[in-house]
Amino acid sequence: MKKYSCGELLEMFESHLAQTDTPAEPELLYNPIVYSMSNGGKRLRPTLLLAAYNIFADDMSKALPAATAIEMFHNFTLLHDDIMDNAAVRRGRPSVFAKWGANVAILSGDAMLIVAYSHLQKCAKEVLPQIFDLFNTMALQVCEGQQYDMDFESRQKVSVVDYMNMIELKTSALLAGAVSIGAVLGGASEEDCRKLNRFALELGLAFQLQDDLLDSYGDESELGKKIGGDILEGKKTFLMMQAMSHADEPKREILRSTYKDATLTAEEKIARVKAVYDALDIRRITEQQISTRFERAISILDSLSVGRESVAEMRTFALSLIGRTK
Amino acid sequence: MKKYSCGELLEMFESHLAQTDTPAEPELLYNPIVYSMSNGGKRLRPTLLLAAYNIFADDMSKALPAATAIEMFHNFTLLHDDIMDNAAVRRGRPSVFAKWGANVAILSGDAMLIVAYSHLQKCAKEVLPQIFDLFNTMALQVCEGQQYDMDFESRQKVSVVDYMNMIELKTSALLAGAVSIGAVLGGASEEDCRKLNRFALELGLAFQLQDDLLDSYGDESELGKKIGGDILEGKKTFLMMQAMSHADEPKREILRSTYKDATLTAEEKIARVKAVYDALDIRRITEQQISTRFERAISILDSLSVGRESVAEMRTFALSLIGRTK
Repeated sequence: MKKYSCGELLEMFESHLAQTDTPAEPELLYNPIVYSMSNGGKRLRPTLLLAAYNIFADDMSKALPAATAIEMFHNFTLLHDDIMDNAAVRRGRPSVFAKWGANVAILSGDAMLIVAYSHLQKCAKEVLPQIFDLFNTMALQVCEGQQYDMDFESRQKVSVVDYMNMIELKTSALLAGAVSIGAVLGGASEEDCRKLNRFALELGLAFQLQDDLLDSYGDESELGKKIGGDILEGKKTFLMMQAMSHADEPKREILRSTYKDATLTAEEKIARVKAVYDALDIRRITEQQISTRFERAISILDSLSVGRESVAEMRTFALSLIGRTK
Repeated sequence: MKKYSCGELLEMFESHLAQTDTPAEPELLYNPIVYSMSNGGKRLRPTLLLAAYNIFADDMSKALPAATAIEMFHNFTLLHDDIMDNAAVRRGRPSVFAKWGANVAILSGDAMLIVAYSHLQKCAKEVLPQIFDLFNTMALQVCEGQQYDMDFESRQKVSVVDYMNMIELKTSALLAGAVSIGAVLGGASEEDCRKLNRFALELGLAFQLQDDLLDSYGDESELGKKIGGDILEGKKTFLMMQAMSHADEPKREILRSTYKDATLTAEEKIARVKAVYDALDIRRITEQQISTRFERAISILDSLSVGRESVAEMRTFALSLIGRTK
């Protein structure tokens, strides 16, 4: 069986996407979809789907429509999230919301979700009911995660467990859905499908915690953005929830109120919160959690019935996702 | 084969819906869905789907999930339309948008569309690919119609043909989708499916033109709302487009500008536009168009392979939709 590298899978996906027709009219319905999809991005989810498929089968044409559906769904969520977050910029360009306004963003997002389903519909008939089920479950979980995330903004108490549940829905469910759909399309056994699903859930958690960590402790030149955005927004991240659970009341008050303190500059706010993080060893706690999740993911991957050499490319992908080389 | 009356079909649908579980949490995601679906409404689309199914089969349990999907999809479009139209009231109650705000309305609407798909997924596996295809096509047409409708608001010239194309997408496509899905589930021949589709398209056009007509010429006590809303909004309806195409320049100017004239009362605006309509015989032209469409629909219905007695209930439904008794 031919095994493709992630780079090759990505290239296949891009070339498939470039050949995918979107209707031309009405322009304000379809142009934002083409604009969103051409927005670059890392194409993590379709690559993951294709890599999962390629563990079990190598006729990639059979997995490309589902990969397109997954990437469209992901971009649909970003499109609507940008309205809800009032976000003007997406991947260095104006968001659909900023470029065309809320009404166009709402309706073209709706159409994008339906177009995603119409790509999914191209899956082989024999597996369509199962794929459709996986997709619906995943899509609803992503919405649930987004709602919990919005709920947390106005909620006083959010525990670490609440936070982990939220990111499992908002981030991991989509990775797990992509991998499961790829595995089912490839003809994996039920047990291998279940294992791959758990692999992707753990990987997704590690990925999100890594994202949280880098926002406070990353390298600005590597990230291509300023450090400390989450702290300045007073966002409830893993670091913040961990710190809140370990802090005494004076430190808690610093964590709760610093971002709102108009007498401080941005740099001072970031330094003040990070001083609390450092005192509580939050960076190390987070790194440990990432390692634990990541290693769990890899050991599940290695336990698949197909043997370790068959999952080599998936392992490489997982490593690169977490920014590791081994 | 047992034939059910539309009243019985509606009752089955309501009882099925009452037994349909929606998850409880997160509340702000799912409560608006339950609220929307309990909002009454005439349940035209699911009844139409069930009536189409019952022409060919009588195990109604097999058609109820698809009927639920259609009604959910319809209510999803209303939920998002209310955000786009800034509409505070829906069927005499606060809209989801007014009650919970735009963000909740966007996200719970998205979830509602996904929940609609998860009901559709319960259709028999053998016909699922075809049903899924019909649903996707229909859903995208409804979005296209909504976009054209919004485009028309800012467009100078809209022809009668443009208008008919728009309502075919925005209104008829959903009725045609409902009927086609019902027919396919019931095991109708391809030709009967095609005919029923055309029947519903024509019926939908008649239904929408009737709606336009009643807004200017209806009986306020029968309608339960004020006459002339479309005129006061300067809405591009069938009556307005017909009048614009028949009017000379002075009359066109009245049609174009009256609704914006701040020196006139609402009653004066309505009277002035209706005077132009009357001078151009618009009421009769519209009634004729409704009759033509309706009779075409009925003659297509009567040409089905199953014979006229099998479509008696569907004929009754069509008559009641247009407010006729024969």
